[in-house]
Amino acid sequence: MTTVREMGEIGLIDQLARMVAEARLQSPDVPGFRLRLGIGDDAAAWDIGAGVMVSTTDTMVEGVHFIPATTPWSDAGWKVMAANLSDLAAMGAAPLCAMVTLGLPSQLALSAVEELYEGMLEACTRYRLLLVGGDIVDTPHFFVTVALSGACAEVPLTRASARPGDALAVTGPLGGSAGGLRLLESGAELGSEWAQALMRAHRRPTPRVEEGQRLLHAGVRCAMDVSDGLVTDLTKMCRASGVGARLDAVRVPVDPALARTASGDALQLALNGGEEYELLFAGTSALIERMVTELGRGAVVGEVTASNPGRVSVVDGEGQELSLSAGGWEHLRR
Amino acid sequence: MTTVREMGEIGLIDQLARMVAEARLQSPDVPGFRLRLGIGDDAAAWDIGAGVMVSTTDTMVEGVHFIPATTPWSDAGWKVMAANLSDLAAMGAAPLCAMVTLGLPSQLALSAVEELYEGMLEACTRYRLLLVGGDIVDTPHFFVTVALSGACAEVPLTRASARPGDALAVTGPLGGSAGGLRLLESGAELGSEWAQALMRAHRRPTPRVEEGQRLLHAGVRCAMDVSDGLVTDLTKMCRASGVGARLDAVRVPVDPALARTASGDALQLALNGGEEYELLFAGTSALIERMVTELGRGAVVGEVTASNPGRVSVVDGEGQELSLSAGGWEHLRR
Repeated sequence: MTTVREMGEIGLIDQLARMVAEARLQSPDVPGFRLRLGIGDDAAAWDIGAGVMVSTTDTMVEGVHFIPATTPWSDAGWKVMAANLSDLAAMGAAPLCAMVTLGLPSQLALSAVEELYEGMLEACTRYRLLLVGGDIVDTPHFFVTVALSGACAEVPLTRASARPGDALAVTGPLGGSAGGLRLLESGAELGSEWAQALMRAHRRPTPRVEEGQRLLHAGVRCAMDVSDGLVTDLTKMCRASGVGARLDAVRVPVDPALARTASGDALQLALNGGEEYELLFAGTSALIERMVTELGRGAVVGEVTASNPGRVSVVDGEGQELSLSAGGWEHLRR
Repeated sequence: MTTVREMGEIGLIDQLARMVAEARLQSPDVPGFRLRLGIGDDAAAWDIGAGVMVSTTDTMVEGVHFIPATTPWSDAGWKVMAANLSDLAAMGAAPLCAMVTLGLPSQLALSAVEELYEGMLEACTRYRLLLVGGDIVDTPHFFVTVALSGACAEVPLTRASARPGDALAVTGPLGGSAGGLRLLESGAELGSEWAQALMRAHRRPTPRVEEGQRLLHAGVRCAMDVSDGLVTDLTKMCRASGVGARLDAVRVPVDPALARTASGDALQLALNGGEEYELLFAGTSALIERMVTELGRGAVVGEVTASNPGRVSVVDGEGQELSLSAGGWEHLRR
């Protein structure tokens, strides 16, 4: 096994630059944008047109955000890119390019770094963005940080623009990633089709990049991604917008493979499971219902309220409030 | 002592966002650039004009790149920002904004993070750039990653554009940072004026941001920063440009405080000491000599050659080649 130390920093950079070159990434299809200088100089440089530039960064730490036992290296690479892409999607921005910082313990296998890059480059190819440089540092503990830039032609989607009376919707079913993680940790049989689907949802989450741009283009103003769980993220949206919200539990779409596990807590995973990247968005009822239809996925899940700013109430089909207890979401005790 | 864990992620983000707000950073003076959304949404967003965007990233890991015993937290904050700014300076770009990723062990003192931010914000104020967001992750080992964006109106400076016959110059004296580190590690008396100057050179290196922009504006095409030591970095420039170089040891400006230590290896530290951010630049002899005069600092240090591509020869005042041995730079044995 070749280790990172044996390879040396310069050898490693050469190897990764070669992988990037071989991936033949296509330039983003954003007018006015053209890469001028990629990997190899003091910094990367690209020609840009006038508009709105969007920047985000996200990190995965081994042992904290993933363990190789449940998330192979190539999936970790996909996921760190997906987490960043999802933040751009939540702004309605088109991805432009990524810079990658690797913190590598010297005894790490070179193959782990190569597989990580394969996963990242797969995401770059799928979502058409360039990998333009970064930094490699020696560290006792593995981490990877991606800084991603994107662009949009107009005012981006924000989480601070929900208004009382707005309808709330999500771009797709929830709970799959959390269900997949539970399955992987349980050591259960993974052969069934639904088990495979849950594992995929956990290991290869789909950032809603096209959907975010379509929402912005159609006139939606308020969105964020559901990376920490629907209730938690909706609460953040409410705080940022100075509003409250009612979430209709029965309308929240549950990942179909998760529903198949019939474990009784599918709703809880859909409401609270994180690490999946559907978008939560708000706007006038007519606009939001039209967008759910046009996107062909997702559902209206609730309403923005003027009362109880910063608070989300979860209600059942009869409008009775539910609360989260050890047994999941249950009716409030009277 | 309050730890990072006691503060919690949300409390910590609030505290750091407050520090950023209180620093009242001024928007960069770059036409067409205006911050639209800073800390608090899925991503940061800013209005941009057409031009060339430049991006870089740099990381400091505790125990690898610094130890708090020789580099207080606020100086670590300054240095990680300075390392990034120096990469922009080497492109001739004006700084725009920074995103900061913190990898924090849960038992780290909150005061350490605050001091780190003070140092970073000091650099943001001095070089007029905005801190627009980032990420905080739980990690067993402290690191800080900064991703910095800048802009220039024209083709940036590159390390790949040196030509045979070009004169080589640096923007200022070298060796101070390495001298300061040696002094700090030696436990020597630090009261003297020169000891203070060397410590400052190590702890508060000056990125040559204005100088880089002036070089580009004056028509210089080739530059890089001297972050790994003059001979090492000049070798990189030669490889990127497909040329060789002759470095005149007697013309290399040695940090005056380092020269005062009279330790005999001042020249070696000036030729090989890293972590300082003067710029190395190349161009026609007339242009380079004019720029050294106009900048009022630095010196011509050598010449680019067609022979020996990728190789740097260090020569004494009589043109005799020197080589690096255990005793420093000495004449080649015959």
